[in-house]
Amino acid sequence: MSKLCDGRTVYINGDLVEDVLSIPILSSTYEYVCKYYSLQKEYEYHTYSEKGKKYSKTFYPPKTKKDLEEKRQVYYDISNESHGMLGRTPDFLNPGLMSLYFHSEFLGENEYTNFTNNAKNYYNYTKKHDIFVSHASINPQIDRSKQISDLENKYSGVYVKNYDKSNIYVSGAKMIVTLSPLADELLIFNMPGLKSGDENYAIAFSIPVNTKGIKIISRKTIDKPNFSNFDYPLSNSMEEIDAYVIFDEVQIPWERVLVFKDIEKSNQFFDRSKIRHHTGHQDITRGLVKLEFLTGTVIELANILGLDKFINIQEELGYLTSSIELVKGSIHLCEENAEYSKGILNPDIVAIQSVRYHLPFIYKRGIDLLQKLAAGSMLSIPTHKDYKNENGPILKESLKSGLSTSEYRTKLLNLSWDITGEAFGQRQKVYEYYHAGDPMRIGANHYLSYDKEKIIGKVRDLLDTL
Amino acid sequence: MSKLCDGRTVYINGDLVEDVLSIPILSSTYEYVCKYYSLQKEYEYHTYSEKGKKYSKTFYPPKTKKDLEEKRQVYYDISNESHGMLGRTPDFLNPGLMSLYFHSEFLGENEYTNFTNNAKNYYNYTKKHDIFVSHASINPQIDRSKQISDLENKYSGVYVKNYDKSNIYVSGAKMIVTLSPLADELLIFNMPGLKSGDENYAIAFSIPVNTKGIKIISRKTIDKPNFSNFDYPLSNSMEEIDAYVIFDEVQIPWERVLVFKDIEKSNQFFDRSKIRHHTGHQDITRGLVKLEFLTGTVIELANILGLDKFINIQEELGYLTSSIELVKGSIHLCEENAEYSKGILNPDIVAIQSVRYHLPFIYKRGIDLLQKLAAGSMLSIPTHKDYKNENGPILKESLKSGLSTSEYRTKLLNLSWDITGEAFGQRQKVYEYYHAGDPMRIGANHYLSYDKEKIIGKVRDLLDTL
Amino acid sequence: MSKLCDGRTVYINGDLVEDVLSIPILSSTYEYVCKYYSLQKEYEYHTYSEKGKKYSKTFYPPKTKKDLEEKRQVYYDISNESHGMLGRTPDFLNPGLMSLYFHSEFLGENEYTNFTNNAKNYYNYTKKHDIFVSHASINPQIDRSKQISDLENKYSGVYVKNYDKSNIYVSGAKMIVTLSPLADELLIFNMPGLKSGDENYAIAFSIPVNTKGIKIISRKTIDKPNFSNFDYPLSNSMEEIDAYVIFDEVQIPWERVLVFKDIEKSNQFFDRSKIRHHTGHQDITRGLVKLEFLTGTVIELANILGLDKFINIQEELGYLTSSIELVKGSIHLCEENAEYSKGILNPDIVAIQSVRYHLPFIYKRGIDLLQKLAAGSMLSIPTHKDYKNENGPILKESLKSGLSTSEYRTKLLNLSWDITGEAFGQRQKVYEYYHAGDPMRIGANHYLSYDKEKIIGKVRDLLDTL
Amino acid sequence: MSKLCDGRTVYINGDLVEDVLSIPILSSTYEYVCKYYSLQKEYEYHTYSEKGKKYSKTFYPPKTKKDLEEKRQVYYDISNESHGMLGRTPDFLNPGLMSLYFHSEFLGENEYTNFTNNAKNYYNYTKKHDIFVSHASINPQIDRSKQISDLENKYSGVYVKNYDKSNIYVSGAKMIVTLSPLADELLIFNMPGLKSGDENYAIAFSIPVNTKGIKIISRKTIDKPNFSNFDYPLSNSMEEIDAYVIFDEVQIPWERVLVFKDIEKSNQFFDRSKIRHHTGHQDITRGLVKLEFLTGTVIELANILGLDKFINIQEELGYLTSSIELVKGSIHLCEENAEYSKGILNPDIVAIQSVRYHLPFIYKRGIDLLQKLAAGSMLSIPTHKDYKNENGPILKESLKSGLSTSEYRTKLLNLSWDITGEAFGQRQKVYEYYHAGDPMRIGANHYLSYDKEKIIGKVRDLLDTL
Repeated sequence: MSKLCDGRTVYINGDLVEDVLSIPILSSTYEYVCKYYSLQKEYEYHTYSEKGKKYSKTFYPPKTKKDLEEKRQVYYDISNESHGMLGRTPDFLNPGLMSLYFHSEFLGENEYTNFTNNAKNYYNYTKKHDIFVSHASINPQIDRSKQISDLENKYSGVYVKNYDKSNIYVSGAKMIVTLSPLADELLIFNMPGLKSGDENYAIAFSIPVNTKGIKIISRKTIDKPNFSNFDYPLSNSMEEIDAYVIFDEVQIPWERVLVFKDIEKSNQFFDRSKIRHHTGHQDITRGLVKLEFLTGTVIELANILGLDKFINIQEELGYLTSSIELVKGSIHLCEENAEYSKGILNPDIVAIQSVRYHLPFIYKRGIDLLQKLAAGSMLSIPTHKDYKNENGPILKESLKSGLSTSEYRTKLLNLSWDITGEAFGQRQKVYEYYHAGDPMRIGANHYLSYDKEKIIGKVRDLLDTL
Repeated sequence: MSKLCDGRTVYINGDLVEDVLSIPILSSTYEYVCKYYSLQKEYEYHTYSEKGKKYSKTFYPPKTKKDLEEKRQVYYDISNESHGMLGRTPDFLNPGLMSLYFHSEFLGENEYTNFTNNAKNYYNYTKKHDIFVSHASINPQIDRSKQISDLENKYSGVYVKNYDKSNIYVSGAKMIVTLSPLADELLIFNMPGLKSGDENYAIAFSIPVNTKGIKIISRKTIDKPNFSNFDYPLSNSMEEIDAYVIFDEVQIPWERVLVFKDIEKSNQFFDRSKIRHHTGHQDITRGLVKLEFLTGTVIELANILGLDKFINIQEELGYLTSSIELVKGSIHLCEENAEYSKGILNPDIVAIQSVRYHLPFIYKRGIDLLQKLAAGSMLSIPTHKDYKNENGPILKESLKSGLSTSEYRTKLLNLSWDITGEAFGQRQKVYEYYHAGDPMRIGANHYLSYDKEKIIGKVRDLLDTL
Repeated sequence: MSKLCDGRTVYINGDLVEDVLSIPILSSTYEYVCKYYSLQKEYEYHTYSEKGKKYSKTFYPPKTKKDLEEKRQVYYDISNESHGMLGRTPDFLNPGLMSLYFHSEFLGENEYTNFTNNAKNYYNYTKKHDIFVSHASINPQIDRSKQISDLENKYSGVYVKNYDKSNIYVSGAKMIVTLSPLADELLIFNMPGLKSGDENYAIAFSIPVNTKGIKIISRKTIDKPNFSNFDYPLSNSMEEIDAYVIFDEVQIPWERVLVFKDIEKSNQFFDRSKIRHHTGHQDITRGLVKLEFLTGTVIELANILGLDKFINIQEELGYLTSSIELVKGSIHLCEENAEYSKGILNPDIVAIQSVRYHLPFIYKRGIDLLQKLAAGSMLSIPTHKDYKNENGPILKESLKSGLSTSEYRTKLLNLSWDITGEAFGQRQKVYEYYHAGDPMRIGANHYLSYDKEKIIGKVRDLLDTL
Repeated sequence: MSKLCDGRTVYINGDLVEDVLSIPILSSTYEYVCKYYSLQKEYEYHTYSEKGKKYSKTFYPPKTKKDLEEKRQVYYDISNESHGMLGRTPDFLNPGLMSLYFHSEFLGENEYTNFTNNAKNYYNYTKKHDIFVSHASINPQIDRSKQISDLENKYSGVYVKNYDKSNIYVSGAKMIVTLSPLADELLIFNMPGLKSGDENYAIAFSIPVNTKGIKIISRKTIDKPNFSNFDYPLSNSMEEIDAYVIFDEVQIPWERVLVFKDIEKSNQFFDRSKIRHHTGHQDITRGLVKLEFLTGTVIELANILGLDKFINIQEELGYLTSSIELVKGSIHLCEENAEYSKGILNPDIVAIQSVRYHLPFIYKRGIDLLQKLAAGSMLSIPTHKDYKNENGPILKESLKSGLSTSEYRTKLLNLSWDITGEAFGQRQKVYEYYHAGDPMRIGANHYLSYDKEKIIGKVRDLLDTL
């Protein structure tokens, strides 16, 4: 019986699963998640000390540019374990909870509880126990043309069904709750966009995953149980399972509530708390790791297929190496332009969002290139089993070249197919596009929130002289 | 025991399989292939009569533009059964064998056999028995910087190991031999590009799949045996299995040989026979069917997600509908500009290659759009089993909208994912890009073989007046 | 005193010009326009006979596919004289006026006049005298968020100021009235989009350019009077001058009025009359000529700079040659799918609009390629004068190569710069994008008006089996 | 008689011009160039003191990151005066000459002179007199398939014709010598790429522009002398004239020679001297200014045409604002990652080249957007003269809107046309693409010189575990 066999209600591929770690691909994924913990034992700088106790550095409140650089290195290390392919490991939300601690004043209080204190206590609690918190912020897309409270559908978000002096009771649903089957707790909140009338949905709270009334319905798993890791190097290593989560009158104690029927605070939750400045810092660092891994794969494939001699291929590879540098530059810029508030140093969101806008397009171009280079070669790769049966000697002979052994070539093509042609890789692409919001909106908001006056002023000044 | 249990040596996922039709996805695929035959019974115009016997219309030697239009309709019907997703059904090669019959004179003869007669007899034979012939033309990509006979690797093509007055004996390998596990016979030849020194590889012949010494090693199957067709509408319906085929001293009777150690004829085989004019006619018709199916899926998804109200989405949909018309226009043009040779009317290859160059890019843009529209919605779709267990009522309620029932929405998203995010769809994309050669080469050759003098002349005339 | 010195009020570069043909670039342009007339004398098939009189074939009412093919050839010839760079020669509107004749019934009548008869008479009149009619349909873009009658600005369109039993009196403005300074008459109408309340603007009529109260304010001319045609082969040859046209209580006799304060008929004018089916036929033929000329220039430049040896350049050139074929295919398709109404055969608008959507993007890619190939070479071309002064011998020696003489190379680079880098070429690009409406709208409308049911049905049929 | 009337041989538009400043557009351009000098008087930080004397900060040898930041600000200010549209103002080459001073050891000596000392002396000389040095590095493109010494054409570069103990004598030609008619001196060298046999061409030296035997043949000027700055805000303000420069046995004293018939040193000249690290730092700062100006223009146009309300337009504007941040990030990175050599701090070339690769594509997309937004509006703009004649009142009334006055709208559209549709703007685009080399090569070299081992290692490590 594993640690996660704690009464949680999780459906995988249509089956109610008592112990999620009994499913091989989830067990394997959990090992990747747990690198977050083991790296703390391995590297001193992954922790920090406070009053004689050690905590994960991800919870550290940065005060200097150097602090940000050190935290960045921690994010990089953790992400590197999964080649940037796991987006929601614990280090994602931890710095967000830290920032919420410092910026929680605006949450205020009501007659039942003090939301500000709840936020501070939750940070202390998760930091102390190094809890893995997953978050659920996206409401199911039923009909985008209507506001949430106008839909008859009762699963268009999570709403307050009832409350008393001790608890609130919530029902409804959230979508794409990534890694939730493997997490300890859930942080539930909304992205900005609620409107007058949506009060019942305007809430935020945290809760253990195994709380009664929470039902996690996962999307289909995409590993290949009938094949080896040789055949599917990534698909069979990790599965950052996404889920649809249903709430049926779940009881939330007041001390776990952060926003209660307050549209303004719900809409401000992510930004005013500066959660996103700090999760964003982790996120673009992880994005860098992923881009480096993709680039390394593309280059290695170009090498062993003898394609890196062509200047047009070289240019495409240079597009990727130079894009890595642009991303690095922006990470530096978000640290360089970081600003203080409430005593901590917050990475610059303008630089962060620049990466968030461009990275999906860069990543897509890299995938397209990888698929182009591999071309038809991927379509007649034999299986691992073929290498081990009577066909083995023939395959080892027939698929080798002066640039690579047969096995290495096949593994690299398998990796390339995992990244480009498999559900694994396509889900990664979709994740990169949408996990931080629709790129169209990210781009539009970059424009809208940009400090434009100075550059427009230059144009006006010129025209005024004519 | 099925019809295909004829002694052929086929490996599927590393196992030697006695009866390929015992594997569910191959059995299901075979049903799609056999629509070619059943449509002949259903529709009179799918056949033609000659001396009182009926033959598939695909073998018909076209004499008029109307003949070409009728053949096109036959191709369209057959392809429509598999939504254009099966590229190598019997109707692909049949018109090529027909054209070879009429243009076989250049094949000549040697002291052992008359190649021209062999070609004619083979057409008569396949036509009479309506045999399903798959073809193998692509040599394994070992190292592109060397010519085939310079490679030490003995599997860089199929070559003559020996011969006597009755037979030739061949060894070596071919890659991406699509649908070969389900075919009756193989037609082996080379694409242009052999050079002096490659004589041993410069051959063409036909042979039954179950001939001794032929070993078919399939790539991994990509269906989802643990899921239903509801979950994977296309992946679980058909699998146009590609294979790596190895020849070990296979005995080929002289009457089956079409080219023998003759580099010039090997290089001319596909074009001078005008095989590609007729297979190309079928191919772009199939491409049209596939593009229509993709476009229909994108439009339907835009409809039920309420996205077809946005003008930028409408434009993208208009890109697809107008591209369908461009393809239709070129199909008409290849019939309109068809030219006679040896008594038959050959579709215009310039118009055909225009489609072959543009279609992959159009298809890719359609896929990208489909994935963009579906976005995150695809990432939290429950399984078919969830609809049938205790979660069913909740899902039916929670995922419905004014525009669609929950089940229809889920099936459509599953179809969209199959086309864009699954190995099935990505293999379809790669197929569309490369089955007729690298688009870069198709484009380059379009330029090189284009009749440019007239348009350059206009420029020269202008400059000469200055 | 030229023929056009007829009292018209035309401003060129801020000057009121009595004789527009006194301006060299307009005089030169007029010669290109007049090729329309001279070709009738040169080629029998540019005219047709009716009751013993000859008329321009462009006015011919097509009855058969062959008629459409013949008219297409006439359009091609005329356009070829200006390399497809003059879009509004007389042959553009003539077939539209012909179509209006046959489809004018819907115009109806009012108490003062019979609009249907006016339309028929106008066709007979222009045909008989072979008059050059320019059209003005675009209303000035003041503020797109408001409807025309809500704007306080009185120049947001042409509106009825007054009327009596003999005449109507109109004021206001139209923009981008191409070639109007050189035309005989103007046809004024609106594109669809007027709304209830816009009645005063809902008019259509024809009128001679020299009518009192019409003021033509041209945009800046873009020729290079200080340089030779050697330096600017196109800029100094023709200038399809666009103009802003102002109406100040212009008196229009009722017999010239086609629509009067009728929003529905104004909105239907262009489409229900099938004017656009016939002008569209001319327009995509002209587009083909232009694309051929551009492609010829790109190929010739690649040749003389020795760039056509690189496969990536070849592919780009193949993109252009194959695109020419796609356009040809669609022209054939619009003739093949033409439908009868009111006794004439109308080219298929779906095929026409497919070209209209795609052509701007193809043309732009061609320009981008041309600019890329010429690259820096264009930035240090000496002038024609340098060739004729003491630098001549040096330049002839220093800029020659094995592939070209110095002068030919310079002229070709000058032509390339005219097409890509000069106001001439950029205006041509903008024209190609917008003369038939914003491509975004053309694309969106292609989707909206497409017969989608059949292709969506295929998807529904599949999903219904699951 | 102006300062530049010093006997230089300059041809403008085919005429030998005694005083280049007598030509209005060159005089106006020269004023922009001279901002470099006047800013030194205006801002203390534009200079630095050494032994009691003031020098332009651009010559300063940076020792700290702060030095680089201060120099960057100086580059920014100078460039801002011309909106980033003048690329070769004195501040471009000055920091390169500084770097050459410190890295000149590799130049060595021969029997006639000490090249290292010559380099040091030249820096001291230019610094002391604040001389405007233009550079000429590009050899004329005659036939790219041959090496320079194999061409019969004697103008394929600048070569040693003769030499004695006092001087060398050079002949030949260089192309695209930007701003050379307005410079004081020329620095002549080659980009890497010479091969064995090219010894005679393998030289570098400096020389005053007015030296006997130097003939500057300018390309056509592209201003609009018949129009006002209102009509052409940029075209009529500055003209960064490019020229073809011919050398006819020009005498170069040995003390001005830096490389003499030495292929290795010629090929190393630009990089080993780290000239390009410092000129690159200036160049990407200037690129930022230009991108900001373009972005400001696009945003302002979107505003006054009421287009900034559409989310797809907002996204495009966000593409530009976020790209500005990427460029800023890379500028920071090149300073952060700067490395010491020979006692000075050299900006990181990897970060610099990342900008150089991406910026042309960003700039092009911005131009395309600007042209798309302005669309047809640009095609019917009246002239400045029309505003001042009897049409003025009508135009002021008819072209105003709630968002802009008529004049401002017209000036902004004129500016937009100058940037996108005029020779001025297209030359700016071509300059951005090619002034630092073909982007294809920049990209390819980024890949080739990138430290790839670390990222490839990640892939190998993963595959080795399978």
